[in-house]
Amino acid sequence: MTPLRPGATIGILGGGQLGRMLASAGAQLGFSMLIYSPEEDPPAGRVAAGAWSAAWDDSDALAEFAAACDVVTLEFENVPVRTVNVIEAAGVPVRPGAASLKVSQDRYTEKTFLNAQGIATAPFEPVDGPGDITAALTTLGGKGVLKTRREGYDGKGQAWIRSAEEAEAAWDRIGGAPAILEAAIAFECEISVLVARSASGETATWAPPRNLHKDGILARAQVPSGLPRAIEEEARAKAVTLAAALEHVGVLALEFFVLPDGTLLANEFAPRVHNSGHWTPEACQTGQFEQHIRAVAGWPLGNTYRLHDAEMINLIGESGLVSPASLGPHDTLTLYGKREARPGRKMGHITRRLGPRKD
Amino acid sequence: MTPLRPGATIGILGGGQLGRMLASAGAQLGFSMLIYSPEEDPPAGRVAAGAWSAAWDDSDALAEFAAACDVVTLEFENVPVRTVNVIEAAGVPVRPGAASLKVSQDRYTEKTFLNAQGIATAPFEPVDGPGDITAALTTLGGKGVLKTRREGYDGKGQAWIRSAEEAEAAWDRIGGAPAILEAAIAFECEISVLVARSASGETATWAPPRNLHKDGILARAQVPSGLPRAIEEEARAKAVTLAAALEHVGVLALEFFVLPDGTLLANEFAPRVHNSGHWTPEACQTGQFEQHIRAVAGWPLGNTYRLHDAEMINLIGESGLVSPASLGPHDTLTLYGKREARPGRKMGHITRRLGPRKD
Repeated sequence: MTPLRPGATIGILGGGQLGRMLASAGAQLGFSMLIYSPEEDPPAGRVAAGAWSAAWDDSDALAEFAAACDVVTLEFENVPVRTVNVIEAAGVPVRPGAASLKVSQDRYTEKTFLNAQGIATAPFEPVDGPGDITAALTTLGGKGVLKTRREGYDGKGQAWIRSAEEAEAAWDRIGGAPAILEAAIAFECEISVLVARSASGETATWAPPRNLHKDGILARAQVPSGLPRAIEEEARAKAVTLAAALEHVGVLALEFFVLPDGTLLANEFAPRVHNSGHWTPEACQTGQFEQHIRAVAGWPLGNTYRLHDAEMINLIGESGLVSPASLGPHDTLTLYGKREARPGRKMGHITRRLGPRKD
Repeated sequence: MTPLRPGATIGILGGGQLGRMLASAGAQLGFSMLIYSPEEDPPAGRVAAGAWSAAWDDSDALAEFAAACDVVTLEFENVPVRTVNVIEAAGVPVRPGAASLKVSQDRYTEKTFLNAQGIATAPFEPVDGPGDITAALTTLGGKGVLKTRREGYDGKGQAWIRSAEEAEAAWDRIGGAPAILEAAIAFECEISVLVARSASGETATWAPPRNLHKDGILARAQVPSGLPRAIEEEARAKAVTLAAALEHVGVLALEFFVLPDGTLLANEFAPRVHNSGHWTPEACQTGQFEQHIRAVAGWPLGNTYRLHDAEMINLIGESGLVSPASLGPHDTLTLYGKREARPGRKMGHITRRLGPRKD
């Protein structure tokens, strides 16, 4: 494709913090940024040239939005595929396309797709009703995590099953929706790989952060990960394989469990910029938000070279109401402009530079 | 003052690239940013939560703008002092205040003020009509630069005079307005100091860049400057003295000529973020835009530590239509969203990281 000229207009489906940081990065490159979100007064709308507050299935609003954009991207993997189809039918490309969404929106499809690319996951079995759980437990060694196939995030829609007796309760806890049962994995740590793929198929990855979770929500991401280089390289190569297989355009995040013997098992991927990459703008030559915009605009990718050791600390719920005086001399604060701090809600993050890169 | 809480609203007088970069930096800290500009569809309005397009003397629009803001700042030193007074009369603080504007809006007042703080400038004489030029030339050694007292920038409103015969023509060239004649200075190079002063009087400076001009417009800024440390320290101390004397709140830029013997002569200052500091976001822990917002919000200042050697290259006129493919691996591009490239118009800049800081 012809690279988008500066001054062109990029639309974003979704108006949360990821859309907000994408909009700021797009504006820095000279683009006009527009937001489409079902939310009223979305955080991203306050840093963009315009915002539509309308439902995902509002064809008139979508048509008007599409007509205002040269290209459309997304900040949210659960944008309905039909929404993307409506925009593409109006002649405006959506990057990444429907394939990345379709695969990632269903855990069963997602893990099957990963395995088909030679990317191992924990063993899993489909569960279409509570009656499937006993057989799945037997196959998977007697315990596992029940996860809804669709719409789970930050630990929502998940329930542990440690014996057959817990099956019914777990099924109820996840809301009785089609699910998978995933084998319990004794892992050493979690890492993720952010990978970008340009419209012409060029790819670039960032150093994989080590991710620490609390209550099912990412709390910290640290680079370097402290893992052997060979493991990091293997993880990066797998993320490149996935992005290419999806013909993905933009940034994508692939999460891995690292077993004690160094085996990598993919957990899930997000077809978008990702919380575990929020340290990249401060610590790398090119951050994930700028890179995503470059890819979507048909520009060459930027250099992902890591300049600093760093950690990213999420500000969650009331703790997101950080006091400016509490910031350290190496901290960069990013707040998302959310009007209200609710428990578990991501309010912002701090990227702490830990010194020049040592390796 | 009590630090502004995240989510509060900061207004900016002026809607050009400086306002745009301030608005993005303010949004990153969680503030809602509003723009007031006489221009229709100003570049800063496209990255802000709202924009007023109205004249500097539109009292109704100013009152409405003030009512929407918790504090107001500016990106443009020629905002009329009356405009600032109207906003302050509405009970909304303007930072920096009228003093910084008043002094900087008139070259004669400015240089007199600098000298009164012990900050030397080139010798200068007031010129209220063409008849004053001959005497001024005699005092200043036979040649000099005639500069309008008000409203000159990027080399506009200036004319060289090399003999008394050129006086009339120079007076006409600058538009026949009250002026100063400044002695010709044989300088080695130009540097500037960006200094920030917080609401509580805390100050911080960045490493002074060496500034290279072309056709009267800044072309490049380079750090480190290559000058001896002692000269840099002296320049930084003078900028701190100036900011304190003005009781300035926010960022201020003081430009110096450096003579072959190392003497520093102040040229002028801008009571705002400055083109010669555009490398700071990419090369320092805290950039000038974030720092200005912190000061205006009553927050503690951030750490100005320089992390990288860097140069900033202005993209001017048609050359501002940079091709994405021409960017180097260490370049960060910022475009200002201007709809049209006119000769001499600043369209964007590139910050090039030249490696980790060496000293």
